[in-house]
Amino acid sequence: MKIIEGGVTAAKGFEAASAGAQIKYKDRKDMALIYSQVPCVAAGTFTTNVVKAAPVKWDQKIVRESPFAQAVVVNSGIANACTGEEGYSYCEKTAKEAERLLHIPASSVLVASTGVIGMQLPIERIQKGVSMLTDSKKDTLEAGLEAAKAIMTTDTRPKYAAAQVTIGEKTVTVGGMCKGSGMIHPNMCTMLSFVTTDAAISKEMLQKALSDDIKDTYNMVSVDGDTSTNDTVLLLANGLAENPLIDQEDESYAAFKEALHYVNTELAKKIAGDGEGATCLFEVKVIGAESKEQAVILSKSVITSSLTKAAIYGHDANWGRILCAMGYSGAQFDPDRVDLYFESTAGKLKIIENGVSTGYSEEQATKILSQDYVTAIADIKMGEASATAWGCDLTHEYVNINADYRS
Amino acid sequence: MKIIEGGVTAAKGFEAASAGAQIKYKDRKDMALIYSQVPCVAAGTFTTNVVKAAPVKWDQKIVRESPFAQAVVVNSGIANACTGEEGYSYCEKTAKEAERLLHIPASSVLVASTGVIGMQLPIERIQKGVSMLTDSKKDTLEAGLEAAKAIMTTDTRPKYAAAQVTIGEKTVTVGGMCKGSGMIHPNMCTMLSFVTTDAAISKEMLQKALSDDIKDTYNMVSVDGDTSTNDTVLLLANGLAENPLIDQEDESYAAFKEALHYVNTELAKKIAGDGEGATCLFEVKVIGAESKEQAVILSKSVITSSLTKAAIYGHDANWGRILCAMGYSGAQFDPDRVDLYFESTAGKLKIIENGVSTGYSEEQATKILSQDYVTAIADIKMGEASATAWGCDLTHEYVNINADYRS
Repeated sequence: MKIIEGGVTAAKGFEAASAGAQIKYKDRKDMALIYSQVPCVAAGTFTTNVVKAAPVKWDQKIVRESPFAQAVVVNSGIANACTGEEGYSYCEKTAKEAERLLHIPASSVLVASTGVIGMQLPIERIQKGVSMLTDSKKDTLEAGLEAAKAIMTTDTRPKYAAAQVTIGEKTVTVGGMCKGSGMIHPNMCTMLSFVTTDAAISKEMLQKALSDDIKDTYNMVSVDGDTSTNDTVLLLANGLAENPLIDQEDESYAAFKEALHYVNTELAKKIAGDGEGATCLFEVKVIGAESKEQAVILSKSVITSSLTKAAIYGHDANWGRILCAMGYSGAQFDPDRVDLYFESTAGKLKIIENGVSTGYSEEQATKILSQDYVTAIADIKMGEASATAWGCDLTHEYVNINADYRS
Repeated sequence: MKIIEGGVTAAKGFEAASAGAQIKYKDRKDMALIYSQVPCVAAGTFTTNVVKAAPVKWDQKIVRESPFAQAVVVNSGIANACTGEEGYSYCEKTAKEAERLLHIPASSVLVASTGVIGMQLPIERIQKGVSMLTDSKKDTLEAGLEAAKAIMTTDTRPKYAAAQVTIGEKTVTVGGMCKGSGMIHPNMCTMLSFVTTDAAISKEMLQKALSDDIKDTYNMVSVDGDTSTNDTVLLLANGLAENPLIDQEDESYAAFKEALHYVNTELAKKIAGDGEGATCLFEVKVIGAESKEQAVILSKSVITSSLTKAAIYGHDANWGRILCAMGYSGAQFDPDRVDLYFESTAGKLKIIENGVSTGYSEEQATKILSQDYVTAIADIKMGEASATAWGCDLTHEYVNINADYRS
């Protein structure tokens, strides 16, 4: 596998555009388009929240029922969530406008929104935005990166990644962009991720690859434990790499999955590291578990513990909080057998052994915890399974962002 | 039922004491004693954390196996959690010292600790503390209130409550004190609650009353979602009210339960309102639920949502976050039928009706949310069940307290 520069336009035949439609922001781009020159098979995974935003309902229908997809229209500023039938009709109007301008069926146009809950979209500005997007779409890397900027809300940096693998002597590219994490802004929300590939792959295998991979990537991220109403991951494959069609779980599927996993992992880590107010990316690995499920429960419990996150912000090797968060996770283990390490570019240190402090140097621990990418590794010595979760520290800035009044 | 002044010494025959043993704090009292002039039946409920502190293990054994209990020795500063066999031996040594000085069996002495995880207790200072406590115990209200101060960690005020009911023409008193909420301080933890009563009641009915009541009181409180390693509620009944023995679920039991429920509810609310860095007590009522269980899941999901808590801090009527937190709770309901109200001493306001904004006045909402006791009421219109949960806002001070280095 080869890691390359780029985002949603890295794969063959994909174009992107961005535009300032003044949905809510006045001085920046707030709409993006992803367009494939040829029809794609599409896979998607969506929020599990009972409260689902209108674009989530629209996309679920398209992914389930449409034979192919060819475009994605995204806006930031307003989430189009809790907007009833009126909100859903705006998804349809947006797709119809893309249909008119791109000469593709509305049923092949996916939509996504992120921003304030409960407000209706200014549909005329959205329609004008679609026109600006279709006029300016390009297949350049630059167009892909500008699209990644247009979908940001309180993100501090655009997020994209791409990788290539060889399948049947053909180069297959997977590229993606995403934004946010958890619910991001006063009344703003949403993790959105868009991944494109020129792989030739059946719809069934594409959905399988995505559904499997999100368990180890996006679903292992938490900024604040608040699952948004809009969370969406879309994966489009247009087949332009001309590799032999992937339609079963063979070597080709594995190669494709490797590239997909790399892109998803990078995007997931970028979301965690750019969590609201975060000063560092906090990674928690649970190893020596009896089962994957047990390792997932334990690592996610630590990554969502407010007390642990505040300690990481304070560069404090507060291992009691980590053991405590493992203890209330619901998973069984023997606290008296746990070894815990902290690791970063500044080194690796064993903090507890068999549940008791090693008498480690606090100074050294603080140095390790003062980096912008910090890992805690808990070995529970029960088996061979492991899991990794990503989050961030809990900071004053998180409270600033979320206690600020919406308007 | 009559609400009265007082805490653990309100009921007949109970004495209390407090002392400065310099466990960790140098300039304040940090040990407390509760003592009954006659043996008590004891009930207890304890943390569900897999990682259980030594005093939790000790007390579980006493409550389960000892025919009676007569004293509780509490220290703040060090939690005696993650301290292995050495830590457990200090519980026994503490009880033995109380046995020697109070002439009661060590098996009737309960112990409780709150503070830093992972440090061993300075046992000689603890033993000296026990001696100071047994020398100074008194049955005055004042002694009870001083004991409530001695068990504080980062609590900003002592917490106590008491009530009386008449059972078989006798006045029965229930009084209690507690401290903290969730995990309270850098490496500090623990909700501790001690309730005393002069009711004559069987051990079985006492445990039943407590186990039932904590579900609606302490278990409905969350400050940060972190379940401590030390959480303990102890309930001692010495029978000195001389009411006919309560040994079945009759009217007398119901009257006792009423007083117990009042004391537990008051203590639970005091914990929530004094959560780390809190500026207000935040109450969430879910009404119109199909089942109690559903109402509990929904109300607790809202009370633990970081985004909702930050919005409450900002006096922001951010109803999208509340609906979102209900949506990811795991309980099923129809978002399009939900009515939501905010209420406080400044008034009551309907914010959404059938899942959509009522077009309420933001100014009025902010006024309601600017009080120090704020209630959100969600009517999901499915049935008759309801539940109430208590928490607090998420503030800059929470981050200050928890990111500060331990030493």
